[in-house]
Amino acid sequence: MRGAQAYTLADLIRENARRFPLRTAVVCGSERLTFPELRDASMRAASALRDCGVGEGDRVAWFAQNCHRYLEALFGSAALGATFVPLNWRSSSAELIRLLGDAAPKVVISQRREIGDVIHAARATGAASQATWIDLDDDGPNGLPSRLAAADADDPGVDVDDEGCAVRMYTAAFEGAPKGAQLTHRGLLAQNLAQIIAQGLTPDDGYLNTGPLFHIAGTMFLFAHLHVGGKNVMLPRVEGEETARLIHEERVTSAMILPPSIPDVVEAARNHGYDLSSLRTPGMTGTPEFEEWTRMTSRSKGIPAGYGQTEASGLVTLNLLAPEGTGAHGLTSHVAQLRIVDPEGHDVPAGQTGEIAVRGPLVMLGYAGDAPEGSRLRGWRLCNDLGRREADGTITFIGPKTELIKSAAENIYPTEVEIVLRAHDKVRDACVIGVPDPVWGQSVKAVVEPVRGEQPTADQLIAWCRERIASYKKPRFVDIVDSLPRTSAGGVDRDAVKAQHGGGGTVGAGSSRAEPLAVPSSDDR
Amino acid sequence: MRGAQAYTLADLIRENARRFPLRTAVVCGSERLTFPELRDASMRAASALRDCGVGEGDRVAWFAQNCHRYLEALFGSAALGATFVPLNWRSSSAELIRLLGDAAPKVVISQRREIGDVIHAARATGAASQATWIDLDDDGPNGLPSRLAAADADDPGVDVDDEGCAVRMYTAAFEGAPKGAQLTHRGLLAQNLAQIIAQGLTPDDGYLNTGPLFHIAGTMFLFAHLHVGGKNVMLPRVEGEETARLIHEERVTSAMILPPSIPDVVEAARNHGYDLSSLRTPGMTGTPEFEEWTRMTSRSKGIPAGYGQTEASGLVTLNLLAPEGTGAHGLTSHVAQLRIVDPEGHDVPAGQTGEIAVRGPLVMLGYAGDAPEGSRLRGWRLCNDLGRREADGTITFIGPKTELIKSAAENIYPTEVEIVLRAHDKVRDACVIGVPDPVWGQSVKAVVEPVRGEQPTADQLIAWCRERIASYKKPRFVDIVDSLPRTSAGGVDRDAVKAQHGGGGTVGAGSSRAEPLAVPSSDDR
Repeated sequence: MRGAQAYTLADLIRENARRFPLRTAVVCGSERLTFPELRDASMRAASALRDCGVGEGDRVAWFAQNCHRYLEALFGSAALGATFVPLNWRSSSAELIRLLGDAAPKVVISQRREIGDVIHAARATGAASQATWIDLDDDGPNGLPSRLAAADADDPGVDVDDEGCAVRMYTAAFEGAPKGAQLTHRGLLAQNLAQIIAQGLTPDDGYLNTGPLFHIAGTMFLFAHLHVGGKNVMLPRVEGEETARLIHEERVTSAMILPPSIPDVVEAARNHGYDLSSLRTPGMTGTPEFEEWTRMTSRSKGIPAGYGQTEASGLVTLNLLAPEGTGAHGLTSHVAQLRIVDPEGHDVPAGQTGEIAVRGPLVMLGYAGDAPEGSRLRGWRLCNDLGRREADGTITFIGPKTELIKSAAENIYPTEVEIVLRAHDKVRDACVIGVPDPVWGQSVKAVVEPVRGEQPTADQLIAWCRERIASYKKPRFVDIVDSLPRTSAGGVDRDAVKAQHGGGGTVGAGSSRAEPLAVPSSDDR
Repeated sequence: MRGAQAYTLADLIRENARRFPLRTAVVCGSERLTFPELRDASMRAASALRDCGVGEGDRVAWFAQNCHRYLEALFGSAALGATFVPLNWRSSSAELIRLLGDAAPKVVISQRREIGDVIHAARATGAASQATWIDLDDDGPNGLPSRLAAADADDPGVDVDDEGCAVRMYTAAFEGAPKGAQLTHRGLLAQNLAQIIAQGLTPDDGYLNTGPLFHIAGTMFLFAHLHVGGKNVMLPRVEGEETARLIHEERVTSAMILPPSIPDVVEAARNHGYDLSSLRTPGMTGTPEFEEWTRMTSRSKGIPAGYGQTEASGLVTLNLLAPEGTGAHGLTSHVAQLRIVDPEGHDVPAGQTGEIAVRGPLVMLGYAGDAPEGSRLRGWRLCNDLGRREADGTITFIGPKTELIKSAAENIYPTEVEIVLRAHDKVRDACVIGVPDPVWGQSVKAVVEPVRGEQPTADQLIAWCRERIASYKKPRFVDIVDSLPRTSAGGVDRDAVKAQHGGGGTVGAGSSRAEPLAVPSSDDR
């Protein structure tokens, strides 16, 4: 809707400036912005973007790390009816070129200081060369700080459709290339309300943004805290002392800190006397550091988790709504509808596995550039994931219908890695599988059949992949085989490869109590 | 929206049947329906309504007391894309005829047993004679029970626009006749989420519906409890023993019981040993019964209240979101936007009074039959109410811009009563004002200037009104005067009438901590 019934992302920042005139909205390094200050900064960003030609339906790309400017650019873009496109800053140059070619942004906000080499290559190429590139840290007249300082803070007053696309978020590839899920204002705001209810958030809550903001997992929690009038604290990466200091000084109540990072945070808190008691965690056991962490922090109801996907604006089921429920992934949220269906689209009985289908405002408008989705189930999104409804109505996510490797919370589609390997001139064919990893859930293993007479080494192939795709997608292990097992139809028999080469650790395949739609707190892997 | 992004009222009942297969949705006398049973009954109601010719955009009127059938008819109507129109069963025949003429329903569900005389007259007249009348209690083949039993429970599968009108609710007249506010699926569901957050509702909550369901005040809480998976208990009117018994047996957690009814409930609980401890109330003092009530019940955070109006799907600000805030009526809810503006539509500074304007999904589509509202403030609904934003962002409602009498929670517009009085052939002119009433806030007083030489009595004029408008709108007091005070322009000087005849008790004019958008628990006044 437009007009008097509308509620857009820009309306949220306008309203929160009215509702919470005295509260801090965001903290980033030495910058602190109240809600009115964030509103004014967002309207200045809107003016600066409009001066670059951005209007309704245009794209504004963000290729930089966590920063309060992310919020200003996002709300500024929303105020113009444009689409904000946060890109994975761990992408290779080749990937970035492909993403920018797909997004065709009018403006790219980037960060040469951190990720200069990748940008240098991408900037000169294809569609991206048409865009206005604005550097986040450049103090010169074309850098973001100067442009914002020169822009006026008047509200552009554009009447934006709240069912239009506010954010385009690229998801891991099903078919060898990421696709841009088009998420609406209405869907993102509905997700906020679902999170506020499940987590019991209030304006006194504060969220430490350690996860990358190009994934729905992190932004979902950021937006929910912002919506309720809480405080967001920005941190580009988890570093023990800085994390502990911010929790102490900002009275952070929630943060995504994965187990490998915990000992450093505990040590910093111990050494500097930082008080972590504002932080709510479920508590951990197993090592002295985990037990100290548990003593230092307060108890939460549990980590907010459930079943979800980027294409549904994040979580669709919520563990915290049904902590005593049978299903491992909780109850369908108050803003979503969920069915478990057979291949003909009929509901399967409770206790039986079927495909998960969702409906409601959370559902994306479709992938950018695709024709509107023709679903086998009219009026529903079929999620390509398998699940089961329990007798008490709660949901258990079983696993993806399509083969998927999950390393920490990164989705790695084998097809994408296989395409890169097959492009190597010593490789005849390749099959990529997930193998269990004690820290990250799964690691990537490539089983490679060389061209006859060639003997590629594991190091060669890993380096080949690293140059072409994000580092976390490259194989960690490579097995060279004479020939891959094949099905009678001649295709690679993936199940046989997994059985012979140690495949396993697939997400949702049984035990995990709740599958966090979470991001790793460190990219050091 | 339609299709995969849609979430309608009918979708809510479908989804809750999936999410809460084992939970009780509604209790009404000896009837108990789980969520799947309520879904099936609602789909049967849809079939029965379709058999009467009801389709998308048609109206289904409800003129009966609180009953589980209300929910079935409402969700059945929603599943067809029709509009459900709950009518005030305290209307006179003349009022009912006018309402039915405006609504032009395809079907009227009525209740001869309780309100037979009024129906008898209305049924034969005008537009209403074209409708199919279905009696709620008639056991014959044309009664509601037989029609529902004969209908099939298959989902009609209509793809309904969730921004279309789901419920038309008539509000007290600004200009002498009630107008039908057209409320959307999306707006009503958004209100539910706001209430779930403010009240902290869970599936273990139960609501006792004592208030009439033709007012947004009652339905707002009914729907919120239904949305979260809680239980609704139906009760046509507050009667001490039945109220106490239902609280005890159904573990009711919330109910709208006004102070005059409390002594009877306390006595029944005492005499029969009913346990009222599940009920959350703010506690009361002042009489031994109130103190016993406080001991018998559990403490709540406070009565959910705030500023709102039917045209905005209920409450727009919520006291429970800011119990410590400066403003008497709390904080703007998480699904609404609110501004305080001057006559030119510019924001007035904090601390100054202006007109309240609202925006977002809660806002009605407009009054039925009116041209789309041309607002002085583009993209906002101007509420015709005065308010103030405090320095901390919270809101205080000052009072209506238009003159209004509030008796309990019924809105009585003087204009409407004056029109009736002037139609009496002994009355030359009349001015109707509110005077303070220790129980109901205000009572209605008419100051009447007779036709020269005539001497109407108070009893005559009260009886005249009772025949023509709802009993609660009739004057309780009548002063006969030689001539009404006039302004220099010749109109009646309402302020002078109030000063001379004891006017006062106007809502919002100062002290009340929170103005409940609440309905009286008894119609015995």
